[in-house]
Amino acid sequence: MDLSGLDTPAGLVDVSRMHANLERVGSYCREHGLSWRPHVKTHKTPELGAAQIAAGARGLSVATPREAEVMAGITNDLLFAYPPVGRAKLDRLVALPESLELTVGLDSLEALRALGSRAAEEGRELGVLVEIDVGLHRVGVPTPDEALGLAREAGRLDGTIYRGVMLYPGHIRSSVEDQGPALQGVSRYLEQVLDVLGSADLTPEVVSGGSTPTLFRSHEVAGLTEVRAGMCIFNDRAIAAIGACRWEDCAYTVLATVVSTACPGQAVVDAGSKALAREELRAPGGGYGVLLDRPAVTVKALSEEHGILDLSETDWRPRVGDRVRVIPNHVCASVNLQERLYGVSGGEVGDVWEVAARGRKRFGIQ
Amino acid sequence: MDLSGLDTPAGLVDVSRMHANLERVGSYCREHGLSWRPHVKTHKTPELGAAQIAAGARGLSVATPREAEVMAGITNDLLFAYPPVGRAKLDRLVALPESLELTVGLDSLEALRALGSRAAEEGRELGVLVEIDVGLHRVGVPTPDEALGLAREAGRLDGTIYRGVMLYPGHIRSSVEDQGPALQGVSRYLEQVLDVLGSADLTPEVVSGGSTPTLFRSHEVAGLTEVRAGMCIFNDRAIAAIGACRWEDCAYTVLATVVSTACPGQAVVDAGSKALAREELRAPGGGYGVLLDRPAVTVKALSEEHGILDLSETDWRPRVGDRVRVIPNHVCASVNLQERLYGVSGGEVGDVWEVAARGRKRFGIQ
Repeated sequence: MDLSGLDTPAGLVDVSRMHANLERVGSYCREHGLSWRPHVKTHKTPELGAAQIAAGARGLSVATPREAEVMAGITNDLLFAYPPVGRAKLDRLVALPESLELTVGLDSLEALRALGSRAAEEGRELGVLVEIDVGLHRVGVPTPDEALGLAREAGRLDGTIYRGVMLYPGHIRSSVEDQGPALQGVSRYLEQVLDVLGSADLTPEVVSGGSTPTLFRSHEVAGLTEVRAGMCIFNDRAIAAIGACRWEDCAYTVLATVVSTACPGQAVVDAGSKALAREELRAPGGGYGVLLDRPAVTVKALSEEHGILDLSETDWRPRVGDRVRVIPNHVCASVNLQERLYGVSGGEVGDVWEVAARGRKRFGIQ
Repeated sequence: MDLSGLDTPAGLVDVSRMHANLERVGSYCREHGLSWRPHVKTHKTPELGAAQIAAGARGLSVATPREAEVMAGITNDLLFAYPPVGRAKLDRLVALPESLELTVGLDSLEALRALGSRAAEEGRELGVLVEIDVGLHRVGVPTPDEALGLAREAGRLDGTIYRGVMLYPGHIRSSVEDQGPALQGVSRYLEQVLDVLGSADLTPEVVSGGSTPTLFRSHEVAGLTEVRAGMCIFNDRAIAAIGACRWEDCAYTVLATVVSTACPGQAVVDAGSKALAREELRAPGGGYGVLLDRPAVTVKALSEEHGILDLSETDWRPRVGDRVRVIPNHVCASVNLQERLYGVSGGEVGDVWEVAARGRKRFGIQ
């Protein structure tokens, strides 16, 4: 099917760009001896998880029970990179196939003990990574001693196996060329943590880190064994803006139709916040997205079903019915709003993928 | 089922607050002789569309084909309040039941002629409201003469019937008590439009307007015959912040679980931007939401699956596993992220509603 046969808004994946992105990351990781366990939150699509495995990923990372249930069909090595708190989530975790090597990241004794207890009830042993805070101040224990305490307990409990530590350098969002000092800070702190753990004979088997903004500098963080970077499958405007990919590496766009040109100086497309997601770019250009083929045209405002194109920097004057492709600022948030992704090659829709891991329902149960 | 049996995050509706909200709007509209045709974008749920009809709505307003298909089972009087541009959308519009009185809002000759042509092919006649811009500068023709041109064409074409005009005062977001001058501006401009249309014997049968922020001052806009306000079924933090509802009129919350307290001064819950939506409040308090029972606690930051509670203004120190209810800033965007809504009365889940009008798929076709 030709693109013109699609209703809008629609999430498109440029298949050759996506495969080139995966190949580039796979090569980088092989070159530096890093495992790659991409986070599927970006695509939530089993076929694309399989493409990551085919490109060399050793397993997948997930954040929700639904993602875990969907991706358990794709890999036998899964990291639940989110503290699983509450009976419902624990029940769903231990119901995952026994053949699955399942590791869980967490940062509290409460979460650890509940996990161990529930796993032991089922006669299972789940791997544990202790999450440490390296500067984002979101989750993660704040001191090496607290990491040690959790690591000890994970090793002691029935139901859990201590595997190592997990970190997320999400506070590093500067241009790639400016990331050196912050990455050195992460390295220095990680070294302290590894020293404390090593002294207690708890040297991690896995040190899991990595984010797409810092991806290609991951080898500068001494001690890292794996990267979880997931956005690199598609990239987006924010990733390109900091130089962590080239513009031509952006593989995901939202196809949209011009529905109004009544208001001078702008055009309105049918991709609003319910298709692009409201994720403002705090960088030159601003707004909520940019046109793939007309980088001078940004999405300057969003309503739920309206995207307002700023025509002040272009002579282009679209007509009602014209179609555009928008690169969103934050691809994960936009994909999460799509029921399907359309794989496009040379202007033709070759694949239709359900974004099967969206939402909260138990997979396979309506 | 007790609330504790729900997995989190989960979208909850306080059923008695919701019914009180609907009753209040229904009474206001009756008192002022205004029709009420609420926009379903807020709830996207057929059972709640039916509740609006039961509370006195004369019909429903929608923005997407999916919303139209779902709500066509609920009312026989539907306003498609969005320019339906492109073959796929027109095909879906004309496939709606013939028993449905369907009216379409639009602002261009291109959209109008394509609609008329497609409707005529099917032997149908669809109502048309000409959208006029009263200050938001999003969609809507910018002059009375352009409104006249579209109205004439709608009356002339096979396939369309001219019904009136539509406006959306979405630029008025100030406190309710400060809205007077802006509403007078809308009134004055609307009067000009109505004069021009009246002189051409095209006096509108319908003058459709209204937004939840200005809802209870709609009677000050001379000439208005109906209001489309839809958010008023639930309200939210932004609506409460401008005084367009009371805090105790907020009927929708997101139930969330504390998953981490590792970082001092904050707690992390499992409702992030994929449950609450990233809709920053540009008003005192800021952030992305506030706790229902602890108004001093705001959601100061969001990741996709993390909401960061700011504990700087409270002595409360939650523990991992504790549960909270968050009032989001923008209810429509949050509901759009839920597969289901849970109707809650007295701490018990009494109803489970599918948010059936989400997304783009044709209703009834997988």
